[in-house]
Amino acid sequence: MANNTITGPKGFLAAGIKCGIKKSGKADLGLIVCPAGARAAAVFTTNKITSAAVEVSKRHIKSATVYGVVVNSGCANACTGKTGIKNAIKMCSETAGFLVVDSHEVLVASTGIIGEQLPMKNVIAGIEDAIGELSDSAADGMCFTKAIMTTDTKPKMACRRVNISGKKITIAGTTKGAGMIGPNMATTLCFITTDAAITKPLLNRALKEAIGNSLNKLTVDGHQSTNDTAVILASGFAGNRPIVSRCPRYKKFAKALAELCDDLAKQMALDAEGATRMFKVVVNGAALKAEATEAARAVADYDLVKCAIHGGDPNWGRIICAVGSCGVKLNPNKLSCTIGDVAVFRNGQPVKFDPKKVSKIISRKEHTITVNLGAGKHSDFCYGCDLSRDYVTINADYHT
Amino acid sequence: MANNTITGPKGFLAAGIKCGIKKSGKADLGLIVCPAGARAAAVFTTNKITSAAVEVSKRHIKSATVYGVVVNSGCANACTGKTGIKNAIKMCSETAGFLVVDSHEVLVASTGIIGEQLPMKNVIAGIEDAIGELSDSAADGMCFTKAIMTTDTKPKMACRRVNISGKKITIAGTTKGAGMIGPNMATTLCFITTDAAITKPLLNRALKEAIGNSLNKLTVDGHQSTNDTAVILASGFAGNRPIVSRCPRYKKFAKALAELCDDLAKQMALDAEGATRMFKVVVNGAALKAEATEAARAVADYDLVKCAIHGGDPNWGRIICAVGSCGVKLNPNKLSCTIGDVAVFRNGQPVKFDPKKVSKIISRKEHTITVNLGAGKHSDFCYGCDLSRDYVTINADYHT
Repeated sequence: MANNTITGPKGFLAAGIKCGIKKSGKADLGLIVCPAGARAAAVFTTNKITSAAVEVSKRHIKSATVYGVVVNSGCANACTGKTGIKNAIKMCSETAGFLVVDSHEVLVASTGIIGEQLPMKNVIAGIEDAIGELSDSAADGMCFTKAIMTTDTKPKMACRRVNISGKKITIAGTTKGAGMIGPNMATTLCFITTDAAITKPLLNRALKEAIGNSLNKLTVDGHQSTNDTAVILASGFAGNRPIVSRCPRYKKFAKALAELCDDLAKQMALDAEGATRMFKVVVNGAALKAEATEAARAVADYDLVKCAIHGGDPNWGRIICAVGSCGVKLNPNKLSCTIGDVAVFRNGQPVKFDPKKVSKIISRKEHTITVNLGAGKHSDFCYGCDLSRDYVTINADYHT
Repeated sequence: MANNTITGPKGFLAAGIKCGIKKSGKADLGLIVCPAGARAAAVFTTNKITSAAVEVSKRHIKSATVYGVVVNSGCANACTGKTGIKNAIKMCSETAGFLVVDSHEVLVASTGIIGEQLPMKNVIAGIEDAIGELSDSAADGMCFTKAIMTTDTKPKMACRRVNISGKKITIAGTTKGAGMIGPNMATTLCFITTDAAITKPLLNRALKEAIGNSLNKLTVDGHQSTNDTAVILASGFAGNRPIVSRCPRYKKFAKALAELCDDLAKQMALDAEGATRMFKVVVNGAALKAEATEAARAVADYDLVKCAIHGGDPNWGRIICAVGSCGVKLNPNKLSCTIGDVAVFRNGQPVKFDPKKVSKIISRKEHTITVNLGAGKHSDFCYGCDLSRDYVTINADYHT
């Protein structure tokens, strides 16, 4: 059976172990290693308060070659001051020591509770353990995925294979994240490996575009975390003619990466904290692209819309309320809304529809809400999920 | 016993009855009448989609004298097209007919589900009923308050008495509203009566200021409704020397009105859908006043903060995350946060604190979160409430 985990692309090893950061005793430390060295690109949170891991990785990503990524869950190492920075650097240098590379050639990522220091004794012992567990098996790829989970209920992985210049190229990715998700440059933690041969600038470009149209379009609760990091590592082991320009080979690669990221974004929406279903909001007829983006997000973020979808209630007035209240230009006499394929509001007037039919549509695992602002030609979209009692239960006592 | 309802100020009659708009059979139509005519001022929603009642009242508020306000609950008369406008005008003209005044001298307000037409037969019969019930008793003042409620669990009223130029002046107000509340010019429905003698422009000024620092500072779910309306009617019956300039008499009046609106805002926060407690977010050290406002609102609106407060969980990292993610200028090395009187984060470093003590603070009916951005001298605040399972339950099937 094909290995569809992050060890699927040639040239990568992975491991995931438990070292006692999480009180639950679940796996909490993961490693990805590319022994021959990889081209790497990354995008980070735009939150003005960034975790120590983000600060350190922002520096290390400038290295021409990256040999490893060390990730912990259970502690965000954010708002932890100078000690936090020292600890994030220590995670890189410990890993680099085993790989016999420079510590600048290792990236670090953290996720979990904000404001607590890492238990460094456990982390250091954990890195040594993880080094000993490294392999290219699907099992260890899966162990990595499990080690980065927090309130996720399911591991999230995606894999795409494409032929480029007669060579089979594999791209595999994994994400964690179920809350503190707002779309703005690299939501949550995301790690992607590929055996494609591609230059660092093009890898960077492809990642930015793919994340921009997938993870960055997802909102669970409207705020991006302090730790958001998306990394892609390219080993070059597929042996394809290197991708060095925006040629058709680049486009094929970028398309596959975009599809993979879209797949991951949808998995995240469906496994968001307490979510039972997801939806896509498409906004057309905006005066500006940015206004289409903003209106789509306003609908997807609105708790009253999210509750109505949770209850299978075709309460479209809340969609119109969100659009009207978010400040974008609209024409009240042209404003229209469709749920699935059913028009509920057209040119500023309510439309008679079968509420049972619409209730069925919004009770599906996935549905699309389309709004036309009647103010221009621009469009954009956003993914969202319903708001359930379980979201409250999970988040009312996550800390304790 | 003093009459602290909206019929407390001299010169006002009120009534509240049921006419069959609400399927529950509860009271759903209210009237306030000032037979001698009142100076009136109002603020309305800034949502770009406005209810028919808002559109009509925006025109009618220009009249020099207002004799009555007719209000229905159970149907927002929003997104209802031309029929909706016709119906809102009809509500005014019916009421005006009984009062023998021009229909432009009557205001109208609606609240309830968006996108449905008013059952006008019931509404017209209801207006006649309400006219027959009008009195200046506290009981009828309370009937009005009950008739405007939707998902409110408690009637909300406040009253202030002040001496101005040797005369006792009474100001009384009532609000409804428990969801679809975002702070931006007159949140939800609010009706205030006073027997002060004051000019229309000054009444307008005092209302705008008072609402700006009270109801507009309250967020329940971040989106303002299509129907938000706040009205103040002044009968002049107190016999005070008329307030015609921004003199000390005006200041006294404005201060009492501001206190009354603050009181109403807090009652709304505590009775927000599913809320069990409220909190105030104070932001200091902002580079601009608007950024202080924005940061305070970002914290109060953040579901993860609201859930943590619901659970009594001192998870201050979510406060910092909200502040960092909302785009305002801040100094990460000066950023600080206090919950009640306990510092939890100071100059970008975590502070050791007793979590049990902080848990107790945030479990109170009211507490204050203070954030210093370390970027300037401006301050502002916002009121918010916790997010509970009941909010979801209420809103997942409000429609049906």
